[in-house]
Amino acid sequence: MNNKLKITFLGGVGEIGKNMTAFEYGDEIIVVDAGLTFPDDELPGIDVVVPDITFLLANKDKVKAFIITHGHEDHIGALPYVLDQINAPVYGTKLTLALVENKLKEFPKTHYKAVAVKPKNVLKIGQFSIEFIKVSHSIAGSLAVCITTPAGNVIHTGDFKIDYEPIDGSMTDLQRFGELGKKGVTLLLCESTNVCRKGFSMSEKSVGRALEQIFEKHPNNRLFVATFASNIYRLQQVLNLAEKFKRKVVFTGRSMINISEIGLKLGELSFNRENIIDIDSINKYADSELLILSTGTQGEPMSALARMAADDFKGIKIGENDLIILSSSPIPGNEKGVYNVINALYQKGAEVIYDELSDVHASGHACQEEIKLIHSLVKPKFFMPIHGEYRHLRMHKQLAMSLGMEERNILLPSLGMQVEVSQNGIKKTGFVTAGRRLVDGLGIGDTESNVLRERKQLSEDGFCVVIVNINNVSGSVNGDPLIITRGVVYNDEAEAFVQAAKDTIVASLKEQDLRGAEPAVIKNMLRRNVSNFIFKRTKRRPMVVAIVVLS
Amino acid sequence: MNNKLKITFLGGVGEIGKNMTAFEYGDEIIVVDAGLTFPDDELPGIDVVVPDITFLLANKDKVKAFIITHGHEDHIGALPYVLDQINAPVYGTKLTLALVENKLKEFPKTHYKAVAVKPKNVLKIGQFSIEFIKVSHSIAGSLAVCITTPAGNVIHTGDFKIDYEPIDGSMTDLQRFGELGKKGVTLLLCESTNVCRKGFSMSEKSVGRALEQIFEKHPNNRLFVATFASNIYRLQQVLNLAEKFKRKVVFTGRSMINISEIGLKLGELSFNRENIIDIDSINKYADSELLILSTGTQGEPMSALARMAADDFKGIKIGENDLIILSSSPIPGNEKGVYNVINALYQKGAEVIYDELSDVHASGHACQEEIKLIHSLVKPKFFMPIHGEYRHLRMHKQLAMSLGMEERNILLPSLGMQVEVSQNGIKKTGFVTAGRRLVDGLGIGDTESNVLRERKQLSEDGFCVVIVNINNVSGSVNGDPLIITRGVVYNDEAEAFVQAAKDTIVASLKEQDLRGAEPAVIKNMLRRNVSNFIFKRTKRRPMVVAIVVLS
Repeated sequence: MNNKLKITFLGGVGEIGKNMTAFEYGDEIIVVDAGLTFPDDELPGIDVVVPDITFLLANKDKVKAFIITHGHEDHIGALPYVLDQINAPVYGTKLTLALVENKLKEFPKTHYKAVAVKPKNVLKIGQFSIEFIKVSHSIAGSLAVCITTPAGNVIHTGDFKIDYEPIDGSMTDLQRFGELGKKGVTLLLCESTNVCRKGFSMSEKSVGRALEQIFEKHPNNRLFVATFASNIYRLQQVLNLAEKFKRKVVFTGRSMINISEIGLKLGELSFNRENIIDIDSINKYADSELLILSTGTQGEPMSALARMAADDFKGIKIGENDLIILSSSPIPGNEKGVYNVINALYQKGAEVIYDELSDVHASGHACQEEIKLIHSLVKPKFFMPIHGEYRHLRMHKQLAMSLGMEERNILLPSLGMQVEVSQNGIKKTGFVTAGRRLVDGLGIGDTESNVLRERKQLSEDGFCVVIVNINNVSGSVNGDPLIITRGVVYNDEAEAFVQAAKDTIVASLKEQDLRGAEPAVIKNMLRRNVSNFIFKRTKRRPMVVAIVVLS
Repeated sequence: MNNKLKITFLGGVGEIGKNMTAFEYGDEIIVVDAGLTFPDDELPGIDVVVPDITFLLANKDKVKAFIITHGHEDHIGALPYVLDQINAPVYGTKLTLALVENKLKEFPKTHYKAVAVKPKNVLKIGQFSIEFIKVSHSIAGSLAVCITTPAGNVIHTGDFKIDYEPIDGSMTDLQRFGELGKKGVTLLLCESTNVCRKGFSMSEKSVGRALEQIFEKHPNNRLFVATFASNIYRLQQVLNLAEKFKRKVVFTGRSMINISEIGLKLGELSFNRENIIDIDSINKYADSELLILSTGTQGEPMSALARMAADDFKGIKIGENDLIILSSSPIPGNEKGVYNVINALYQKGAEVIYDELSDVHASGHACQEEIKLIHSLVKPKFFMPIHGEYRHLRMHKQLAMSLGMEERNILLPSLGMQVEVSQNGIKKTGFVTAGRRLVDGLGIGDTESNVLRERKQLSEDGFCVVIVNINNVSGSVNGDPLIITRGVVYNDEAEAFVQAAKDTIVASLKEQDLRGAEPAVIKNMLRRNVSNFIFKRTKRRPMVVAIVVLS
């Protein structure tokens, strides 16, 4: 062994989402986070995207632990797929583990061993010593980790912010970051999500105060608050306001119902069960006595809020006395969906308040001044920015340099990169297989997939199937060619289109001597002729499949 | 005739884009703007979206003029489709008309008559008197209009902002708005794009100052500025800076080349031709002597900037000495594409400055304080907010009420709405056919189209075609069933999938007596069985087409 810690970046670098980092010392690997990311428009029909874990599978026996920093999907979402193939215990706070368990319910075959940890706990695994450090974030039970090996201390911040008035009374453990910094930190891995934002993030309590003003101003309205169900602190504040303003609470949306239950059970949420009512009894109360807590802040079409906006949610009909607060902000890419829901709510006569109009949301990620504070407390020898697109990582590097760090002590990670860390240096050693795996129904595919290219083409221009029955003795065409199109021609053009296509096919077949011709040759000819015909007629290029039946 | 002006809202209300409003008095109709909008993800394969003009076609002979407020696509883009069917002259400033003409080049069959107008001009058409009023916006030659009939004055603001230091030296004609207000304005139609933003929009000159600082700070870098080509004021400022800092200018991107040429010819842009160089001679100059002006601020994959970022632009290779300024902001929905380009540029080693990091862009639309100013100058009897999603129109109504306007004097328009305006009142009279028409290659379809539904399904799950040849005398199956899938199974699963599908089909056919069976019945049975088979195996629901060949 050469006293070196090897770090492999399997996700969350050069991208926001699917966080995963492997730490290897001697014969042991520990993995920090196993997240997913949601697909964009370039991946039609894909459900979720998870890291490519070829590297971990090749080192299966070395993997001793999955350390999960918190319970968001981009940190836990790949666990069902990973645990299916690699058997190692999962460590996290009790809320994190409860969310993992809730997730694994849908994958009943996956076995897993969970070990709950708390801030300040130190976990020993082989030559690793892993200390958990309390951080604030938009979900309770969030941790940073300090990973100690003979190569020195490496701090991985997880996702964090600095909130001087935390809802749970315990803030990001600045003292411990400072203490570790004083002792000496070889390498800092720090998240970069909000590194382009100046100043400090808003405190969670200031959101509570903004919400309280709205409650005060609208005593007679029926109130709705939509937020991420996993934002336990936000839920707690809304539940407190409901109690203060004597409103009964209705939980709507599957994850809201699940997580409020989990939160209460674990003591992460506290509320009086008597104040919670079922949606069926909503009509027994006046508007002024009600508060509806819902999911759907990202405009997801099947969410509670979107269904209410579409008048498709049993028990709730949005009307003029409703005031709906979206305590959230749209994730880039979701803007249109979110504004569609907001417009639909307005059109039903409701009042809507969202983050563009009022301070009803606070980010869970550190802005520039908070990031500077962590750097200044930790004062690492070496630094690598993580959790960000390349533009964030670059900006984070500049920010570290503005604090006096030398450029040669900063390394920007990318997917699959491996680095070796010792007390004296950090070195890029190469790349392992890494990237994304696409989960699609029950299948797992890859980026370069034929399936995706085909779907993309189909979505742009549809398809056309041509079937011709040829007598391979006489070479004559039996009956009419059969033409099936989907997504190509509009109803009123369809009949004329099909007739013209048939004429084209018959004409092009007549030009050839088809006796004993290879079906592949006839197929190619047909495909070319039909494609050209369609392009000329419609300027579209559907996928054309030609089938030759010989009889 | 009953002294009433009828206004019909054909676009730009309840949406951003495809602006079109018809004003009808007696036997005459004038149409203000004829814009397009770009399709979103819900409309795969659609090129552009234009207003449904059924109403205008039904009143073809009445249409006397198209008044175009300025040359942006959401104001001129539908003209090729509209002028194809309705023959009336087009009025606008010379830059607006030049852009329309440039657009119509692609539609050589469209005849049109253009009439150039200037601010302060008054146009008489029948009983209409139309006065043009200078406004500032992110394109030169922008106008508001005051439409006078016996029903009084109606002001339509077009798109505008208030810029106290306009680049062209002539600002939004606040005095004339005030003068008309003093005389009496029956109805104000005011744009709402930025009504949710507090304060004032930044001035165009402050963008110039921010750019100048960047030029000063980076004397040795090769500089790139990406911006909308139609933003003539921005171009002028960048061209001035190039001259000041002794940099040669390269125009890249088709619209940049076209519009700089048009601008120079019309005198809207002034620059020394000697300072413009061709991309082929770029290597004769040092980085410090170059400024590249490009399109592509919205991350469009085929634009100059995106191709440079992808190392696919002849003559320019992005490297470490390049500084690229995106003088723009992403239109909602384009964020991901824009950030992809920014990340790719960073990865090539370039420095990138964009609106999130620096004040290198100013919006062309009035924010709250500017809108309040226009309301306060015009003091209309009645008010209708236009150019905005429903949430913007609602917010604009609240803003007008905060200025003292009574709720009963405000009407929110929606698509197809018709209102009657007289000196004493404004009344909603009903709705005409209105909505969107989808331009797709050479075809124009409608919203409820089968084509779009099919493409959407195809993009999610692909398709499967099953062909079975049945001897309708014996009822036996001839040969193997044929199965073609696209977008359903990944390469490595394909063979096993097809075999299992065949087995399923053969088994299900065996269960039936097929002698003389109706092909339709066999088809339905096959489709159902194959769908179920695929769902069980893959959890996907591709479009299944079954074909039965009887022989």
